[in-house]
Amino acid sequence: MLERAGIVLTEAESEQIEIADFGLGRLPLEGLQLITYINTDRYCAKELVLFPRQTCPEHLHPPVGGEPGKLETFRCRLGQVFLYVEGEPASDVQAVVPEESEAYYTVFHEIVLHPGEQYTIPPGTKHWFQGGPEGAVVSEFSSTSRDESDIFTNLAIVRMPDESEEVIT
Amino acid sequence: MLERAGIVLTEAESEQIEIADFGLGRLPLEGLQLITYINTDRYCAKELVLFPRQTCPEHLHPPVGGEPGKLETFRCRLGQVFLYVEGEPASDVQAVVPEESEAYYTVFHEIVLHPGEQYTIPPGTKHWFQGGPEGAVVSEFSSTSRDESDIFTNLAIVRMPDESEEVIT
Repeated sequence: MLERAGIVLTEAESEQIEIADFGLGRLPLEGLQLITYINTDRYCAKELVLFPRQTCPEHLHPPVGGEPGKLETFRCRLGQVFLYVEGEPASDVQAVVPEESEAYYTVFHEIVLHPGEQYTIPPGTKHWFQGGPEGAVVSEFSSTSRDESDIFTNLAIVRMPDESEEVIT
Repeated sequence: MLERAGIVLTEAESEQIEIADFGLGRLPLEGLQLITYINTDRYCAKELVLFPRQTCPEHLHPPVGGEPGKLETFRCRLGQVFLYVEGEPASDVQAVVPEESEAYYTVFHEIVLHPGEQYTIPPGTKHWFQGGPEGAVVSEFSSTSRDESDIFTNLAIVRMPDESEEVIT
């Protein structure tokens, strides 16, 4: 999918694609694949891959160490992304809420992103997102990524980022 | 070139590609083309296009308002970039220093980036870069962009970013 999006990785990066299943053991339904290009104490950039209908579970980014929570911009590169944030719920939600996890999806203000379209999520805002019927490649530009602080609606989720996401200071 | 790199822009973005000639009036030699996706008070992301042998003139990013200077990561997406920073000079510089501007290029520690390769430039470090024989597309991930504060070695240069680069707070 990255190749189809025209995104070139080094060989080292290709071998370090992170598979995040959020400890739920049902990657095709709830999870995502990612490459962290850079994560410093000032900014972060990643490439996210979502398979068809794969969902990144609902969460928010709280303040950490006196800094406001993570601010992030999602830019769709390939496919289609259904993004949900706090606000007026869509009357007809286009995503398919992952079965048996319905209780953990509570915000339904819908933003649909096609290639070239982007959306910036304010700090502390609950959000979740799903790849469309063909999946999606999404660039994420953000403030520092401290995934271990993320608060998931499903309290069973523990997000332990791998070392490639460590903050470089 | 963006299309060749697989990068999709919205129609509005396509109409707002910024042409930066740094007030020198010799764009093919010294200048670049860019799209600013997002510039907040926490991070910035841009796409840069360099035509073959087109050069972004030597400059550095000083501290602004108590914050350290801009930290930036260049990731090559297409073509080849010759990047020069402070440090041990290359014995055989691969870039062609723009004629009649030789006095304004003073750092020659060479980094060559191919697609998928990236380099992070520390704040306050003099740097310049040039597209290779086929030009280059480069993603820039960085802390907040405040181009009007940049210090160019050529004091004739005034960098006035257009409004698309304004910081969103």
